[in-house]
Amino acid sequence: MNSDSICILTTGGTIDKVYFDAKSEYQVGRPVIEAILEEGGARFPFRIEPILRKDSLDMSDEDRALIRQSVAEQEESKILITHGTDTMVETAQALQGVADKTVVLVGSLTPAHFKNSDAPFNIAFALGALQCLPHGVYIAMNGMVFDPGSVRKNREKGCFELA
Amino acid sequence: MNSDSICILTTGGTIDKVYFDAKSEYQVGRPVIEAILEEGGARFPFRIEPILRKDSLDMSDEDRALIRQSVAEQEESKILITHGTDTMVETAQALQGVADKTVVLVGSLTPAHFKNSDAPFNIAFALGALQCLPHGVYIAMNGMVFDPGSVRKNREKGCFELA
Amino acid sequence: MNSDSICILTTGGTIDKVYFDAKSEYQVGRPVIEAILEEGGARFPFRIEPILRKDSLDMSDEDRALIRQSVAEQEESKILITHGTDTMVETAQALQGVADKTVVLVGSLTPAHFKNSDAPFNIAFALGALQCLPHGVYIAMNGMVFDPGSVRKNREKGCFELA
Amino acid sequence: MNSDSICILTTGGTIDKVYFDAKSEYQVGRPVIEAILEEGGARFPFRIEPILRKDSLDMSDEDRALIRQSVAEQEESKILITHGTDTMVETAQALQGVADKTVVLVGSLTPAHFKNSDAPFNIAFALGALQCLPHGVYIAMNGMVFDPGSVRKNREKGCFELA
Repeated sequence: MNSDSICILTTGGTIDKVYFDAKSEYQVGRPVIEAILEEGGARFPFRIEPILRKDSLDMSDEDRALIRQSVAEQEESKILITHGTDTMVETAQALQGVADKTVVLVGSLTPAHFKNSDAPFNIAFALGALQCLPHGVYIAMNGMVFDPGSVRKNREKGCFELA
Repeated sequence: MNSDSICILTTGGTIDKVYFDAKSEYQVGRPVIEAILEEGGARFPFRIEPILRKDSLDMSDEDRALIRQSVAEQEESKILITHGTDTMVETAQALQGVADKTVVLVGSLTPAHFKNSDAPFNIAFALGALQCLPHGVYIAMNGMVFDPGSVRKNREKGCFELA
Repeated sequence: MNSDSICILTTGGTIDKVYFDAKSEYQVGRPVIEAILEEGGARFPFRIEPILRKDSLDMSDEDRALIRQSVAEQEESKILITHGTDTMVETAQALQGVADKTVVLVGSLTPAHFKNSDAPFNIAFALGALQCLPHGVYIAMNGMVFDPGSVRKNREKGCFELA
Repeated sequence: MNSDSICILTTGGTIDKVYFDAKSEYQVGRPVIEAILEEGGARFPFRIEPILRKDSLDMSDEDRALIRQSVAEQEESKILITHGTDTMVETAQALQGVADKTVVLVGSLTPAHFKNSDAPFNIAFALGALQCLPHGVYIAMNGMVFDPGSVRKNREKGCFELA
């Protein structure tokens, strides 16, 4: 029933962070999201579209306009956006009103490449919500689904909560 | 918005399997589901209720009646059931018509204690769906949400698919 | 300097245990030891020779004679034996006196396929010892190297200790 | 027999690298080495002494003099040094001739906090070698033990090899 094709837009943030310096031998393998989906045996059609690679504190109004435009242009109606947590709420609010789309924003507090990262749980949880939610814009964090108009990141506790 | 309290009923199946023999030193730690929720930073209220510990091929009509009764008796309206995959569809069908509940059944092909198990993804995905679905009974497997009346397990491919 | 070719004999035991029942979909992938060596970037020549698949409590004198014969016949002088922990000491004692070989026995308390198993550490530690020890028979467990004549398994503590 | 107390000197390098920026919520937990030893059930006495926190390309002659002095001052005769791989050979050569010590240098190509890092294998392998080697200075990488006078890092292949 709910197994529509999904478009995954990546914009940067902690979830995507990889240790890197000019001298490093470390090479990033295939995208972490693909590995997470494969481990979970996911069998729905999906496409990953990298559109930005920014710390969310560095995101400008132009960046958010770009994200909104990109969401509107995708042919899929279900869109997952991976995003830094610090300004995820602002971006979600900037996306409100996009027509005929279900959009879920998700991120993580620990990079996905780390052991015991919250990223695999968050991605899988967000995908479950995305498959089931009506059109609209949502934030999926901490095993909960939030309306962008009534959520904030609590930096001290390191979690999202009702605002 | 969607962060209702969740009741998790465990019934056995591969997801719960732990190597054990009489001579084994291996001791199971705390329930795997709690560890998965903690790693994901989940902050919604939940309760875990173990009701059976059976291979799903060994489940009888009485077992299914017991599960249905247990679902009906829980005070939470959102219920996750971990279940063996072989007869998950039968159990889901036996639960249809339960009043005022959203019920999602989930399992895994590899035990949750194993490295690279599909269990963490499946649990998180099912919880995301559970937080968003209307009342009814559903199967969440392979990153998809199925209606119990139109799904089967494909044993050769090791996945669930539309029937 | 010390990077001789290594022969790895597997005999069963917890380290090798994999959940299995007749109905199970779970398929064991390639041998765990190869995955451990690859993750560690190991670049010495090695060969894996499965000779038994027994719980060590079920090992008979004939089994130990077979292991001893197998050790003697390998062309490599450095031999790692993976073995159940319950009678590892007995087998090590039965191997003493084998000519011109360095033999290290190793096992684990948790199956290698499990998350957070002690197997990867134990295998790597035993290989480090094996590359450096003079001819003789040794047990490598708990980050220590033991003489088979002065070690016992402490079942209560779940570790090996001086006897 | 070989279970002497071990002193672990940490000097920085990739093995120790943790993603960090001023805005990050990521907090490093307890030292990775302790977690590795606990997972492996290690039961020998050890002490961890952080002495530097440098990329090994930034290490100066003064740094190496400091490391040599620190090695000489420890009361343990067995010393493990975690070190960046790029100049591990230079540091090992600078340590040669230290009296009455077995010193093993080890590092990793991927940070220990990453999933599938080579660090746990390398640490465990190096400890196994350290427990068994006579006095002297050694490099343990890629499942092999090298003499500092006849080894080089092959940056293209991402491994250590005989020079």
